[in-house]
Amino acid sequence: MSARMKLVVAYLGTPFSGWQRQGGRPTVQGELERVLAAVTGGGRIAVVGAGRTDAGVHAAGQVAHCDLPGRVPADDLCRALNAVLPAAIRVRGCRAVRADFHARYGARGKLYRYRVRRRQPLPWHDPRVTAAPPNLDLEALEEALSLLPGSRDWASFTVTDPGRESTVRDLYRVELARRRDGFDIDFVGAGFLRYQVRRMVGAALEVGSGRRSLAELRSLIEQPQPGARILTAPAEGLCLEHVYYRQPPGLRFP
Amino acid sequence: MSARMKLVVAYLGTPFSGWQRQGGRPTVQGELERVLAAVTGGGRIAVVGAGRTDAGVHAAGQVAHCDLPGRVPADDLCRALNAVLPAAIRVRGCRAVRADFHARYGARGKLYRYRVRRRQPLPWHDPRVTAAPPNLDLEALEEALSLLPGSRDWASFTVTDPGRESTVRDLYRVELARRRDGFDIDFVGAGFLRYQVRRMVGAALEVGSGRRSLAELRSLIEQPQPGARILTAPAEGLCLEHVYYRQPPGLRFP
Repeated sequence: MSARMKLVVAYLGTPFSGWQRQGGRPTVQGELERVLAAVTGGGRIAVVGAGRTDAGVHAAGQVAHCDLPGRVPADDLCRALNAVLPAAIRVRGCRAVRADFHARYGARGKLYRYRVRRRQPLPWHDPRVTAAPPNLDLEALEEALSLLPGSRDWASFTVTDPGRESTVRDLYRVELARRRDGFDIDFVGAGFLRYQVRRMVGAALEVGSGRRSLAELRSLIEQPQPGARILTAPAEGLCLEHVYYRQPPGLRFP
Repeated sequence: MSARMKLVVAYLGTPFSGWQRQGGRPTVQGELERVLAAVTGGGRIAVVGAGRTDAGVHAAGQVAHCDLPGRVPADDLCRALNAVLPAAIRVRGCRAVRADFHARYGARGKLYRYRVRRRQPLPWHDPRVTAAPPNLDLEALEEALSLLPGSRDWASFTVTDPGRESTVRDLYRVELARRRDGFDIDFVGAGFLRYQVRRMVGAALEVGSGRRSLAELRSLIEQPQPGARILTAPAEGLCLEHVYYRQPPGLRFP
């Protein structure tokens, strides 16, 4: 009898060609599947993630599930996986779950954080940051970000994907927090399209550095323009922090 | 006319065989001298550090001086060095100084920090930490550390070095600070012998984990025993944080 396991996974995106398995290239899903097969000593074990992260994007709390051929104590599995995984991937926790838990279909929301810092990085700087563009006006950036939340068609902020049914997604909350030498931007939404967070950040940085007007951003949001020319902010600043399996508290639209 | 320059340097110790130049092996001094010669386009430029750090030991505020063949704006030099140096070495600042400034002979004190953390490291953990030994009693550790400060003969805590005149050094302050998931130990002294900080940490950890009595530690401190069997704590937890060129404030012995 097989046993479903939920994994919470942290990884540095830099050395990987994203989450999703691709023949021959190092990916997080590929590494997890390789190591699960090695540790359980059996055949292939498929790992299903809550979502795909792109090449270079990090995760502190990606969630995945897999079905093991038999019952294994969760803590033992966690230790065994971390002993074999490369240091850029750490399993933060394993837990046996009901067979109807599904990492992707069960996800009700996600928190992404985009980290921007000003200073020359030290050798032990947090690798999950990117440099700030020069002459950034934080007030203007904050005003740009305040236009984003809502249940919207995000076609301006993603790339064409023939297999996708809709580009409408709920974005619950966008929040800028000032940090020493920079700032973080948090995005909480029901789900995100490919490049959506990086293009939302890019468009807001364009407004914050005076290269785009607030009115232009409003028009990109309110009148979807597929293929719009928007800066895609670097992957290195983006991290999937958390996946919610209940409605994120207090974040329903009124 | 040559110009003396003071450099403040941060580095990750892990990829280097210590500070001091050694033919054929990667060292911090060796990298700085190689890059200075490349950047100034001339012959060899000797770099004099405030002190040697051992293989694997980090620095956030190592200080060095060098004599350049001519005047170069300090900020330009800093940028040029960082553009060529490996990412594990960063020059935090350059400043033109008087010809009588000497990084080593002018140093009046140093601050070393030893970082111990408990948790499974995340992929972006601070690499300047080491794991805590199991069953550590922090109260006992603190009591052990409190025995250390003083102007003492540290022969028990170093290795034999025929060229050295004295093993007496002033240790001004030792302080344990609890952190999330661990603790830091700060050592401020006029100067330190080879392995002294790591062996002071090691002996205190032995007391804190019940493998050595406080009385034994007191005897090692008060009756110097060259070659004493003391744990040398791992290099990866140690970082040279600051070099003082004035008497560290408030740290004279009464």
